Amino acid sequence: MTPQSEDFSRWYIDTIKKADLMDYTPVRGCIVFKPDGYELWERIQQAMDKRFKETGHRNAYFPMLIPESFFEKEKEHVEGFSPELPWVTEAAGEKLEEKLALRPTSETMIGHMYSQWIQSYRDLPVLINQWANVFRWEKRTMPFLRTSEFLWQEGHTAHADEEEARHETLQMLEIYREVIEQELAIPVWMGQKTPSEKFAGAVDTYSVEAMMKDGKAVQAGTSHYLGDNFAKGFDIKFLDRDNKLKFVHTTSWGTSTRLIGSMIMVHGDDKGLVLPPRVAPTQVIMIPIGSGKKREIVLNKVDDFVTDLKREEVRVRTDVRDETPGWKFNEWEMRGVPIRVEIGPRDLENNQVIIARRDTGEKLTVPIDQLIETVKGLLNEIQTNMYNKALQFKAAHSHVHIDTLDELNKHVIKSEQDQVIAGWVLAGWCGDETCEAKVKEETSFTSRNIPFEPPLNKETCITCGQKAQHTVWFSRSY
Amino acid sequence: MTPQSEDFSRWYIDTIKKADLMDYTPVRGCIVFKPDGYELWERIQQAMDKRFKETGHRNAYFPMLIPESFFEKEKEHVEGFSPELPWVTEAAGEKLEEKLALRPTSETMIGHMYSQWIQSYRDLPVLINQWANVFRWEKRTMPFLRTSEFLWQEGHTAHADEEEARHETLQMLEIYREVIEQELAIPVWMGQKTPSEKFAGAVDTYSVEAMMKDGKAVQAGTSHYLGDNFAKGFDIKFLDRDNKLKFVHTTSWGTSTRLIGSMIMVHGDDKGLVLPPRVAPTQVIMIPIGSGKKREIVLNKVDDFVTDLKREEVRVRTDVRDETPGWKFNEWEMRGVPIRVEIGPRDLENNQVIIARRDTGEKLTVPIDQLIETVKGLLNEIQTNMYNKALQFKAAHSHVHIDTLDELNKHVIKSEQDQVIAGWVLAGWCGDETCEAKVKEETSFTSRNIPFEPPLNKETCITCGQKAQHTVWFSRSY
Ligand SMILES: [Zn+2]
Ligand SMILES: [Zn+2]
Repeated sequence: MTPQSEDFSRWYIDTIKKADLMDYTPVRGCIVFKPDGYELWERIQQAMDKRFKETGHRNAYFPMLIPESFFEKEKEHVEGFSPELPWVTEAAGEKLEEKLALRPTSETMIGHMYSQWIQSYRDLPVLINQWANVFRWEKRTMPFLRTSEFLWQEGHTAHADEEEARHETLQMLEIYREVIEQELAIPVWMGQKTPSEKFAGAVDTYSVEAMMKDGKAVQAGTSHYLGDNFAKGFDIKFLDRDNKLKFVHTTSWGTSTRLIGSMIMVHGDDKGLVLPPRVAPTQVIMIPIGSGKKREIVLNKVDDFVTDLKREEVRVRTDVRDETPGWKFNEWEMRGVPIRVEIGPRDLENNQVIIARRDTGEKLTVPIDQLIETVKGLLNEIQTNMYNKALQFKAAHSHVHIDTLDELNKHVIKSEQDQVIAGWVLAGWCGDETCEAKVKEETSFTSRNIPFEPPLNKETCITCGQKAQHTVWFSRSY
Repeated sequence: MTPQSEDFSRWYIDTIKKADLMDYTPVRGCIVFKPDGYELWERIQQAMDKRFKETGHRNAYFPMLIPESFFEKEKEHVEGFSPELPWVTEAAGEKLEEKLALRPTSETMIGHMYSQWIQSYRDLPVLINQWANVFRWEKRTMPFLRTSEFLWQEGHTAHADEEEARHETLQMLEIYREVIEQELAIPVWMGQKTPSEKFAGAVDTYSVEAMMKDGKAVQAGTSHYLGDNFAKGFDIKFLDRDNKLKFVHTTSWGTSTRLIGSMIMVHGDDKGLVLPPRVAPTQVIMIPIGSGKKREIVLNKVDDFVTDLKREEVRVRTDVRDETPGWKFNEWEMRGVPIRVEIGPRDLENNQVIIARRDTGEKLTVPIDQLIETVKGLLNEIQTNMYNKALQFKAAHSHVHIDTLDELNKHVIKSEQDQVIAGWVLAGWCGDETCEAKVKEETSFTSRNIPFEPPLNKETCITCGQKAQHTVWFSRSY
């Protein structure tokens, strides 16, 4: 496997292939989510879905195919998505009268349906989420992070007024932060996108942004206040209490299988994956050691542990394959399993087992009668430790004292010379799009978001030196 | 709402629209699964998925788009599915070099991947399931039962030998039977499809078949032993223990959102839906009665009940809308909610509530302190009663003493004259496809399956009178 420091992208591809999370297919930019990869998604789904339902949302399913004419109804939206659409032009041996796009997102189809479902203030709010496959025919793809087909959830809500819609937008962003931080152990910055980076058709876009180990950012989730843009495009009106016909205010919000990629790039190391216990398909791998007639005693004891751990809802597997212990240690480290338990005949004689932590590499000798409790405690400890480590990494690579484009250029060049990652830079911005564009042009750093709670407030624009209107995170990104 | 006896299809459409399970869309044959409809699917998914995992299967996700050339690799398969495929021919502004079909089922894509994943007997068995959207551009559509896009699960497994693959095929059929009978309260016949009705590319197809209230059948789930047909088409070979290169034996099995439609057609009545408690989105609807200053006392008491019921994991909702009790009774009966609880000021004075059962219409007066236990008991009782009722209905409309085509023709004509449903007919069959085809031609009855345990064994073929090789269920079907 390529080391991270040599070529991070190469390391990433090597790791996810070797750890059996995905495979390439003959369809351009489309991957298979193999069972270990898909199970990460299932656990993310469960964590998200539970919170969506607790906040009053329900799931529904809308058609995947969207008539061409629907895209024309919101000008910015069609401009944003048209270049990436795949089209169905024939079906059952006949040419279609109107081309149908594979959905890149469902604001248009859902907007059309909402216009028929919403008549009165009594019909509001509409709080619906959809789990679905979506398509964006991208030129450059990267497994999990950017593929032609991917899996996601998209929430679409309609409200009687702006205040309620804006509250919804931020509520869902907060749920994303919670799941991503608590379940995936990825610390994020919550904030608002600059106008040039917002969703095509939104009034305001908010995001949670995460830092990968190569210092690049991943937009881990977005939540949009759409104002009445789609309501006007699709004529979604309601009769309010005051007997006036008004447009609804809509929101949409999404997270996708790119969270799997983020998790790998945030926690992985040169030995392979490091998976957060809360979402790891296998939390504990049991490695029975020794051969001959003592092996059966060991295997029986291992079976007992497995039964006990399963009773405690620990996801445990046993590796009884005909390979050396050393080979198995490497294999399961590469697959990122949080805890390895080694049990041999001598351990049993001494009433102990050996536990190895994937996150720190630490080895512990544990009395047999404390194994179950120790494992349970460790799973929590590893989860917390992984989050804290990622938080420290993020802090160490967030630069808050770079104030001019010249300083940023120097920082980037010096990082390359020293072969360290350039990380993120907190910078002032006057609000002028040309200033933002110039940062990108010179450094390929783009604005990530305007954090709600920046570590400090910047006084001057990084490009023009004028008074800053906003304090913005800039970085390279996936 | 149209009565069932007047026009069953009309009744079905009226009911699912009015009960807010689905809506039509501008895309031909594609529907929206609205929250109450989709939640039925979520509960079916949970029940299935749990059992798939308990039997060692894992979920994965394969690309939705399938290259045209893949379909050519299994001759029967391409003939079976080609006429119904929608095609992507352009993407991101360019014409594709090879057309891509929207998957009608994934044997081809998965076969291609398995050929790369499977090398040795150590790689077997492969036990994978996929939850996905699929497409069949059908001429005649019927919401839930037959739509251009629908949701389903498709299991795809590969095995070292025929015996194991055949065991898998029947194991999954048994899981379907269990979920459909236990969760959806739909009794089914398990059996084998005749060659003319089997899956395109299968060696043997097995099905579970359910009887709707109009006497027509729905194929509720199918499981296929594919032999080495796809293994040969996609070159899926493994090196066996004996050091010989062999083709794997594959299976596939599927159930879909047509189960939602079946559930409605099996249990519904002229008042609307009747939902089995295990899958009903709302199991109990609370209707507070009375107005004025006593209303608050009633509402407080209702809130207490709701809290208690939720603690017991009962799915309960309260209808506090500004409508009459009678209107609400009709509304929730139409939506099929298993139990209605009415509570008014006078009930509270008498320390009692009124409970109404949707399945029987029965009303009970229950002491307040027994409400929770009564509701829990009733939910089970209703589930069992609905299954038994459906079982009796099936028995009453299964005709086992019709032995010739002439008798069948007379039975069909008489049923129409008497305006009763023709139901199913158990008939002998010599095994000749022309005899089977003649039944269809004359009566529009098709073979449903050859039941594993027929109520009796037929001696002669219904068409030619020769010795019967099989005893077969025939009926009209969706
Ligand atoms: Zn500026
Ligand atoms: Zn015959």
